[in-house]
Amino acid sequence: MTGSLVVVGTGPGKAELMTPATQAALARATDLVGYGPYLDRIPAGRADQRRHASDNRVELDRARHALELAASGHQVAVVSGGDPGVFAMAAAVFEAVEAGDPAWRSLDIRVEPGVTAMLAAAAEVGAPLGGDFCAISLSDNLKSWATIERRLAAAAEADFVIALYNPASKARPHQIGQAFDLLRAKKRGETPVLFVRAAGTAEARVVSTTLGEADPSIVDMRTLVIIGASTTRQVGRWIYTPRSERGGA
Amino acid sequence: MTGSLVVVGTGPGKAELMTPATQAALARATDLVGYGPYLDRIPAGRADQRRHASDNRVELDRARHALELAASGHQVAVVSGGDPGVFAMAAAVFEAVEAGDPAWRSLDIRVEPGVTAMLAAAAEVGAPLGGDFCAISLSDNLKSWATIERRLAAAAEADFVIALYNPASKARPHQIGQAFDLLRAKKRGETPVLFVRAAGTAEARVVSTTLGEADPSIVDMRTLVIIGASTTRQVGRWIYTPRSERGGA
Repeated sequence: MTGSLVVVGTGPGKAELMTPATQAALARATDLVGYGPYLDRIPAGRADQRRHASDNRVELDRARHALELAASGHQVAVVSGGDPGVFAMAAAVFEAVEAGDPAWRSLDIRVEPGVTAMLAAAAEVGAPLGGDFCAISLSDNLKSWATIERRLAAAAEADFVIALYNPASKARPHQIGQAFDLLRAKKRGETPVLFVRAAGTAEARVVSTTLGEADPSIVDMRTLVIIGASTTRQVGRWIYTPRSERGGA
Repeated sequence: MTGSLVVVGTGPGKAELMTPATQAALARATDLVGYGPYLDRIPAGRADQRRHASDNRVELDRARHALELAASGHQVAVVSGGDPGVFAMAAAVFEAVEAGDPAWRSLDIRVEPGVTAMLAAAAEVGAPLGGDFCAISLSDNLKSWATIERRLAAAAEADFVIALYNPASKARPHQIGQAFDLLRAKKRGETPVLFVRAAGTAEARVVSTTLGEADPSIVDMRTLVIIGASTTRQVGRWIYTPRSERGGA
């Protein structure tokens, strides 16, 4: 039997935000491989389906395990949150392919797109990503803090709306404050800042503030931070970025 | 009867990439407002549902029409492709709210997230968005070409993966070539470049090339262009950006 591997994302959390293509791929799989809390979101699939739950910090081990299962004939689904290609498992799978058994390069590997956290966060508050934007992971586990600072400075120079993934964890609670300090030197204090916790879930919570007043201590691992461009503005209870750089209608 | 307005995205094209939340919102709506080809993707909803198809170039008129319908008690869905918050209708709706009848600010307006084109394009080729990235619309209908050049230069400086939306149209066929020229002065010629046409549809087609060799003449309105970061690479038939800036596993 020929094995296969599909990398999927559950979306931000609510079942209604998981695409039908991903639901079908999950139902078909003989083996689900992923971080335990993501696997817990998935309804039961075929009767012989096995689930391989792992810790959050072992992406490469998990990817190798999934590739071994596929190489031995299983129909494997690797499960991420959000979209699997954005700060999630798809890149880890291809890293493992590159460093691993050359036979893995001829496996049937596919990626199914999903709704990534910044899109769900943006939808909670209006349309803050309405202009050009960038997405930066604030984690320095895999890149230097100097690189992150260079990217924040360039994002300010470009006047991009900035979506920050992984803004804080227990091991690095202070970096989001450092990021705000850097951006305050380059952007107006009135720039809208949004803290969206658990976007796209029933527990979603939004704090809408400004760069001048943003309190980094309310940020945690489940928070997505959006920092506006110069044109980002409030209307009623919504925050949006006009399509035109001249702003407004 | 109290009206409502929800802004949705159909995803990149295939029905299996439209979220169940969006399907449900569309089925419930009394009125669908959108660009004709997007409305054509949507299965029949409730029996009394009306469809208001419009041209592509009249986003603000369409948004005002939708708001008027909602204000007069209809359950309106404004239909975009992709995700409605990314270079699509959500920002136009809030622009219309800001410039329009103050009563519109108390309407029940929601945005449903969707799968935006760059995520579908990335999934077709592997995981090119595996690191930090930016999304830029190359259309200068609503911003100056100087702004676009400034953003491209900053994106190169940041070493972001770059996703280019609206890379060309009949009215502006030459800008993608100008963008490549600008980037060639700042990035290596071997940088992977992906032209993904009709991503997330049955007709998806990928051309994988390099910045040095990229031929802008194959780009059209349905193409999403992805330009790699310095670490973006090929393994087997896939293109991916490692999670680590040191590259690889």
